[in-house]
Amino acid sequence: MKDYELTITKFLQRAVELFDHKEIVTKQRDGSVHRYTYGDAYERICQLAHALDDYGLDSGDRVSVMAVNHFRHYELYFGPSCSGRSIHTTNHRLPEHHLTEIINEAEDRILFVDPEFVETVESVADTLETVELYVVLDDEVPETTLEPVTDYESFIEGYDTEYDWPELDENREFALCYTSGTTGLPKGVQYVHRRMFLHTLVHGHVDVFGVGERDTVMPVVPMFHVNGWGFPYTATFYGSKLVLPGQHTAPAEIAEFIHAEDVTVAAAVPTIWIEMDAYLESTSDDLLDPLDRVLTGGSAPPASLMQKFEEVYEAPIYQGYGMTEASPHLANTFETAEMQGLEAETRYELKRKAGIPAPGARIRLRDDDGNPVPHDGESKGEIHARSPWLLDGYFKRPEANQRSFSDDGWFKTGDIGTIDEFGYLDIVDRIDDAIKSGGEWISSVELENALIDADGVAEAAVVSVPHAKWQERPVAYVVVEDPDIDEEELRTYLLSKFPKWWLPDVFRFVEEIPKTTTHKFNKKHLRDKFVQEHGELPLHH
Amino acid sequence: MKDYELTITKFLQRAVELFDHKEIVTKQRDGSVHRYTYGDAYERICQLAHALDDYGLDSGDRVSVMAVNHFRHYELYFGPSCSGRSIHTTNHRLPEHHLTEIINEAEDRILFVDPEFVETVESVADTLETVELYVVLDDEVPETTLEPVTDYESFIEGYDTEYDWPELDENREFALCYTSGTTGLPKGVQYVHRRMFLHTLVHGHVDVFGVGERDTVMPVVPMFHVNGWGFPYTATFYGSKLVLPGQHTAPAEIAEFIHAEDVTVAAAVPTIWIEMDAYLESTSDDLLDPLDRVLTGGSAPPASLMQKFEEVYEAPIYQGYGMTEASPHLANTFETAEMQGLEAETRYELKRKAGIPAPGARIRLRDDDGNPVPHDGESKGEIHARSPWLLDGYFKRPEANQRSFSDDGWFKTGDIGTIDEFGYLDIVDRIDDAIKSGGEWISSVELENALIDADGVAEAAVVSVPHAKWQERPVAYVVVEDPDIDEEELRTYLLSKFPKWWLPDVFRFVEEIPKTTTHKFNKKHLRDKFVQEHGELPLHH
Repeated sequence: MKDYELTITKFLQRAVELFDHKEIVTKQRDGSVHRYTYGDAYERICQLAHALDDYGLDSGDRVSVMAVNHFRHYELYFGPSCSGRSIHTTNHRLPEHHLTEIINEAEDRILFVDPEFVETVESVADTLETVELYVVLDDEVPETTLEPVTDYESFIEGYDTEYDWPELDENREFALCYTSGTTGLPKGVQYVHRRMFLHTLVHGHVDVFGVGERDTVMPVVPMFHVNGWGFPYTATFYGSKLVLPGQHTAPAEIAEFIHAEDVTVAAAVPTIWIEMDAYLESTSDDLLDPLDRVLTGGSAPPASLMQKFEEVYEAPIYQGYGMTEASPHLANTFETAEMQGLEAETRYELKRKAGIPAPGARIRLRDDDGNPVPHDGESKGEIHARSPWLLDGYFKRPEANQRSFSDDGWFKTGDIGTIDEFGYLDIVDRIDDAIKSGGEWISSVELENALIDADGVAEAAVVSVPHAKWQERPVAYVVVEDPDIDEEELRTYLLSKFPKWWLPDVFRFVEEIPKTTTHKFNKKHLRDKFVQEHGELPLHH
Repeated sequence: MKDYELTITKFLQRAVELFDHKEIVTKQRDGSVHRYTYGDAYERICQLAHALDDYGLDSGDRVSVMAVNHFRHYELYFGPSCSGRSIHTTNHRLPEHHLTEIINEAEDRILFVDPEFVETVESVADTLETVELYVVLDDEVPETTLEPVTDYESFIEGYDTEYDWPELDENREFALCYTSGTTGLPKGVQYVHRRMFLHTLVHGHVDVFGVGERDTVMPVVPMFHVNGWGFPYTATFYGSKLVLPGQHTAPAEIAEFIHAEDVTVAAAVPTIWIEMDAYLESTSDDLLDPLDRVLTGGSAPPASLMQKFEEVYEAPIYQGYGMTEASPHLANTFETAEMQGLEAETRYELKRKAGIPAPGARIRLRDDDGNPVPHDGESKGEIHARSPWLLDGYFKRPEANQRSFSDDGWFKTGDIGTIDEFGYLDIVDRIDDAIKSGGEWISSVELENALIDADGVAEAAVVSVPHAKWQERPVAYVVVEDPDIDEEELRTYLLSKFPKWWLPDVFRFVEEIPKTTTHKFNKKHLRDKFVQEHGELPLHH
């Protein structure tokens, strides 16, 4: 007899069998609130699966979804996957040539898109080779050049509200997500059912995020970022009330939604919580009252923010460390028995770190030659990870796989870290030159290549500098051959190739760019010098 | 590349990598306390694995362990299993012919035994066909007829304290445990690594038992009962301090140990907590002060006890429902958002039930014809279960497997239950006639067969009646052909075949035994009549 497969269909079944009365609440485009239950959602997920059958979407085929966090996006998390297909969540903020590449590579046959991203899709539609149908996530189709096109409500309307879900192999792909962390084009990570099952069990662990049925969970993190860090799945499996903020992610909107819907757990990158703190400073409301804890990740928040959230807002911040490749969770902060006896300052310094590997995950540090690095809190090494919910290779990227795994099967994260005597991991640097701005990756190498291609530019280096709100922002160092070239010209040029948020905050025109002994740009030197002179870029830069 | 296998070796690795300073504390035979760390235990577990290699125990071979809960038993939970062998935990309370059968069937090659059970093993040693070596769990060998024999400390002494653990297939057996729940000889359940990995993740879930690093865990439940309900594994994976009471399980001893070692979570059958309550009534000490929660299972405790533990001892009782076949966990009580608004009485009535299926497990009710039974809190049906950590068949028992699984792959538990509108399962009856006394199974059918075999006995029926301390006890109804036969004679006769605790508390000599329409003994009628006349058997019966 075969073991009961670890599939995400089990999440859906548990929600409908035990928690069909619990709510999923969405802040809609027009600011109104959409409210229904897991039972209601289940019926529409069944309809969606039937609609895909009827359309002729084969088992294993993929659909694209380009959307913010709302109930229709939630339904797309289950309908395709539980019926044997896969969803490819796409990030509307990507440069256009990235979107073209990844949708073609994934061979997506249907593209589901929010009305506000229709224009983005229109601008790449001519280059999409496999998309046969566009479905706008609304109850009507807006003015658009996309074709053929329909709206989501028409697409699922009239189908049966029950569905006979197949018993899927747990090692089957249910989702695909691209990561832009390093140089070159984004790389795809295929998520398989088993790994998300394990990841979700870990999310409910008392030493991880301890998400349970009594929680009301709000993923502010976009659902196109590594499965919304897994929280839509977690909430479903445990029957937690789920609160989806749509595009309403400004601090005031989030704070009010937390207050109105009694949110106990909210997850977002540090940038959101930095802004939230600034916003709360300016109001007298106790809007975060229901909030029990804050989950963050992607980069370390300042220790002062950790202290403020714990002592003033009474919603301690717990950090997660992870990545697209790891579903994403690998490590998290929690207070061990030992830590409970420490002074506040030491505790916050520890909690600012990336934390302790979750049960099942392992972390190690290796030097350039692959030798172990001591766990003394000071020695630095590349972070290697293993876990049963980590990828076993990038989608269609054999050459990246060779670089990304050690001979004994550990994933080389590209992050540089230390591990202290408490077992706490701290992320101190990155091997590549990618820049993480408000939780989104910017490729310094792509920016550099574009700048060097510009007429009259001799050399260019783009470095990451600390930023009070976005955590990191790009700064460009440029050597020009033509003295007439100015910043505005370069900005206009770059805007023709990249989205606005990719553009360097500062351009520095220099005589030459310092090199390392191996004749590479010495970006570390540039970054250190910039920080020494300017500190971090201020909030309103 | 292969996925990272879900093996119990990962538990050990996590403990030694992150929590090697945390303690394992044992109350020893002489009442003294043995105290060491996960780091110390790891070194001895490595030595044990080397000793097994050196002995020539092949991959896949089994060892028997007959022991109470102590650190050497703990080491045996990992040394054999993580090096590719399996441990067969045996219950010293079993009738001798059961011990012979199961040890021979399991083909155990080494038998590890506590000094106090050496006599038990001696009495069956002549019948054991595969055991080659006896290892007494002590630092010396007592007077014994067993041979060849050594002591545990000599067995592991001098070996290397590091071991290169193999990457095992997660579907490989790591332990074997027999269940005596139903009629006939005990049936073996093979535990495979993957299932215990999942079971252990579930134990740490905030809606299950939420066991974490800050907990101090005391399994009072014997480690030969379904892996000590999994708690030694759970404590190891999460680095919880582990407290093992040895044979010191009297209420006063447990209470004092809880107090001395700051135990936050203790797990035992209801009998223990009923006795504990009686003991605490007689003392003025606040011995349970450190205790945060009590985990129980095997049968439902009285609602009054639930209330007392929550309100007086401030250590609420959480119930688990499970069985040897399920590793054992299937369902547990926890307060859902909905329940928190209920009145105390309703809450305790709910918490007395078996609870809600753990994430990953599913429960359904079926009538005699296999049709669904409504979840209305009243309709009764046989409980069917599925979970990724449930057995896929008994060890060497094809005929039992046919009976025990539905056509669509669900395990038929043999328990009768109801499910209410909160999704709470309640166990109301059993299909077979087994008796569960203080957490241990007694086979009514074996007692009946023995009685009928006795000279001068015409008919005999053994029924389960409620007991204030042991939850259930056997009562025998006997029809004699020879009027001279008396209770004492039957007691003496049964004692030659069964352990003392199997003997019926009451013998009733009757003219005839009532039959059902299908000419079976009407045990339900006998039991109901007995309870009507006598109520439950009192504490000191």
